[in-house]
Amino acid sequence: MNDTQTAANGSSDRRVIISIDAMGGDLGPKAVVAGIAQSVVKNPSIGFIVHGPKAELTPLIEKRGLSDCCEVRDVAEVVTMDAKPSHVMRNGKGTSMWSAIDAVKNGEAEAVVSCGNTGALMAVAMIRLRKLPGVSRPAIACLWPSRNSGGFNVMLDVGADIRADDKDLLQYALMGGSYARNGLDITRPRIGLLNVGTEEHKGRAEIKSAHDLITTAAPDADLEYVGFVEGGDIPSDRVDVIVTDGFTGNVALKTGEGTATLISEFLREAFKATPLSRIAALLALTSLKRLSKRIDPRRVNGGVFLGLNGTVVKSHGSADATGVSSAIKLAFRLADSKFTDRLAARVASAPDPRQDDAGSEQENEQTA
Amino acid sequence: MNDTQTAANGSSDRRVIISIDAMGGDLGPKAVVAGIAQSVVKNPSIGFIVHGPKAELTPLIEKRGLSDCCEVRDVAEVVTMDAKPSHVMRNGKGTSMWSAIDAVKNGEAEAVVSCGNTGALMAVAMIRLRKLPGVSRPAIACLWPSRNSGGFNVMLDVGADIRADDKDLLQYALMGGSYARNGLDITRPRIGLLNVGTEEHKGRAEIKSAHDLITTAAPDADLEYVGFVEGGDIPSDRVDVIVTDGFTGNVALKTGEGTATLISEFLREAFKATPLSRIAALLALTSLKRLSKRIDPRRVNGGVFLGLNGTVVKSHGSADATGVSSAIKLAFRLADSKFTDRLAARVASAPDPRQDDAGSEQENEQTA
Repeated sequence: MNDTQTAANGSSDRRVIISIDAMGGDLGPKAVVAGIAQSVVKNPSIGFIVHGPKAELTPLIEKRGLSDCCEVRDVAEVVTMDAKPSHVMRNGKGTSMWSAIDAVKNGEAEAVVSCGNTGALMAVAMIRLRKLPGVSRPAIACLWPSRNSGGFNVMLDVGADIRADDKDLLQYALMGGSYARNGLDITRPRIGLLNVGTEEHKGRAEIKSAHDLITTAAPDADLEYVGFVEGGDIPSDRVDVIVTDGFTGNVALKTGEGTATLISEFLREAFKATPLSRIAALLALTSLKRLSKRIDPRRVNGGVFLGLNGTVVKSHGSADATGVSSAIKLAFRLADSKFTDRLAARVASAPDPRQDDAGSEQENEQTA
Repeated sequence: MNDTQTAANGSSDRRVIISIDAMGGDLGPKAVVAGIAQSVVKNPSIGFIVHGPKAELTPLIEKRGLSDCCEVRDVAEVVTMDAKPSHVMRNGKGTSMWSAIDAVKNGEAEAVVSCGNTGALMAVAMIRLRKLPGVSRPAIACLWPSRNSGGFNVMLDVGADIRADDKDLLQYALMGGSYARNGLDITRPRIGLLNVGTEEHKGRAEIKSAHDLITTAAPDADLEYVGFVEGGDIPSDRVDVIVTDGFTGNVALKTGEGTATLISEFLREAFKATPLSRIAALLALTSLKRLSKRIDPRRVNGGVFLGLNGTVVKSHGSADATGVSSAIKLAFRLADSKFTDRLAARVASAPDPRQDDAGSEQENEQTA
C-alpha cells in the first residue's frame, strides 16, 4: 500500500489513511487488528499504517485478510501503561506510539489512534505535532451519552491538564464547539461552563472570568453560550459542549462511568436473584439490549486531543474490537472533515484574550 | 409535649428530639409532615419540634394524629430556594430555618432536619451553632450507593465550600471517618483522597500535601488510609470515605445523580418500546423494583453538615415523605450515638497541622 498521499484531496471517494498504534492496549494487538477488520467491513475507504513488532502484527493482519489495506511499520518497543510521560518524551523514539504519531507529523496519515497510556500519548503528541498557533493548553474531549437528538454531548478537558485558567476555558469552548460542529454535525453548538450552581455569583474566580470571556466571544464563533451548567446537566439536552478544567472533567468522567457500571451490575444481579426473575430476564432481553446499546461505553470510545497540529484519538486502554472500531470511525470522520484545519482557522480567527500576556508560556502537566 | 430535656440521658429508651424545618422544600410542609408520620410508625422514640406557620402546620399534624409527638413552633417566614445566604444571615431571624437551628443551639433538640436552601442552611448553622474548636471549614457529607457490604460510601465535601487546602482535606478525612464510624457502623473506615490518578506523583499541590498529612494522621485516628482514589472508585468497595474539595465533590455528586437518572429513563423507555417489551416489563417488575431499591436516591437522602456544634441534616429540596423520613432516620441515628460529641473529641485529639498558621482565619464561601 503506497497510497498515502491522498490527504490533499478533499473528495469523498479518496482513501483516508489512519495511523494505528497497535500496542499498549490491555487486550494487546489482537483486539486492535480485530477492530481494524470491523472498520474495513463498514468503510472500505480507510487505509491503515499499523505500528508495532512486525513479527507479531503480520500474522494477525494476514489471518484477517487485511494485507491490502494495512501497511505495517516495524517498531520493537512499546509504551507501558505505567510509563512516566516525561520518560517516554525523552526515550520513546523507538516505540509504536511515537512512530504512529510521526506518521501524522510526516503527512503520511491524517489521524492517529492509540489505546496506550494517555499521559505519554499527550506528551509525545505535544512534542511531535506541536500546539496549534494560539493554543496555550491542548485538551482531551470525550463523548457522553445524553438526551440530545444525536445521543451524545462533548465534554472537555477530561484530563490533558489538571489546571485551566479563564483563557484556557475560553479556548476549550472554541475548540469544543468546533469539534461538536465537525464531529457531531451540530451547526450552532450550545456551550455550558461547568460550575457548582447556575447563579452568576457562584464559583471560583477563574470560572466567573471565563463566563465573561465566553459570553463575549460566543456570537462571533457561531456558538450559543448557555452559561453555567451543573454536573447533572452533563448528560442532559440543555447543552452540547461542557467546558471544565482537566481535574474536574476527569473526576466527572470517571464518576459517570463508575455509576453506569454499578447500575449495570446491580441490574444483572436483580435479574439473577430468583428463578422467576431469570425467566423475566430472558423475555426482557431485547429491551435490555436496547438499553445497553444506548449506554454502551464502547460506542463512545475515543477521547480526541484538541489543539494540536494533527488529529489524535485516544481509545480506552481496555477497548475490545468494537471499541477500537468506534475510535477508528471517529478518527476517520474528523480526518474526512479536515477537522484540524478548521479548528486551526477557528482558533486563529478568535480574538486573543492573551495578547497582554506575552511571555507567560506555561508548562503542561498531564493527569493521566 | 414538654419532654425536650432528654438529651443528657444516653440510655436507648430515652426520647430523642429532632428539630424539623417544615418549610422550604419543593413539595411544601405536607410532604415533611408525611415524612414525620412515616418515621413515627417505625420509631416511636423520636419526638419532634416542627417549625413553620402554625395555622398551616397544625391541621396537617392533627390530620395524621401526630399531636402527641410534635410540638409546633409558630414562625411566619420561609427561606426561599433562591435566597442569598448572606441575606438570610442578616435577615433570617424570623424564618423556620433559623428557628429550627436555634432549637439545637438551645439544647431543646439534638439534631435538625431541613429541606431548605443549602447555602442558607450552612450560613445560618455556621453563625448560630459555630464551628467546632479546631475546625477551619465545615463540610457536607453525603451517602453514595456502593458495592460495600453496608450499601453506601461517604463522600465529603459535596458543597459547603468550593475551596479546601491540604489541612482542610485532612480534617475532612478525620470528620468523614468519624461519621462513617457513627453513622454507618464501620469500625475502621478506609479513607481515599480523590485525585485524577492513583500514582503518588499526580495531582494538584494541595492534594499531594494532604496525602502526606493523612498518611501520618490516619493510624492514630483509627483510620485506614488507602491513598488516592479516582472517580470510578466512588461507588466501589475499595474505600468507605472519599475526601475531596467542595467544588469537585459537588460536581461528582450531581454527575452521578444525573447519570443514574439518565439510565433509569433509558431503561423505562427500553421497556416501553414495543408491545412485547411491555409484557416483558410486567414480568421483570420485581427485578426492576429490586434494582430501583438499591439505587433509590430517597434512601440516601440527607447531607450531613460536619464540623459544627450540633448535627444538621440537609434533606434534598425535592424530598417526598420517604426522603424526609430517611433524613429523619439519619438525624436520629447520629443524635442517638452522640455523634457531635464524638466528632468534637476526635478533631480535638488530632495533632493540629495548623499550629503554625495562627491568625489565618478564612472566610467560607458556600456553593449551593
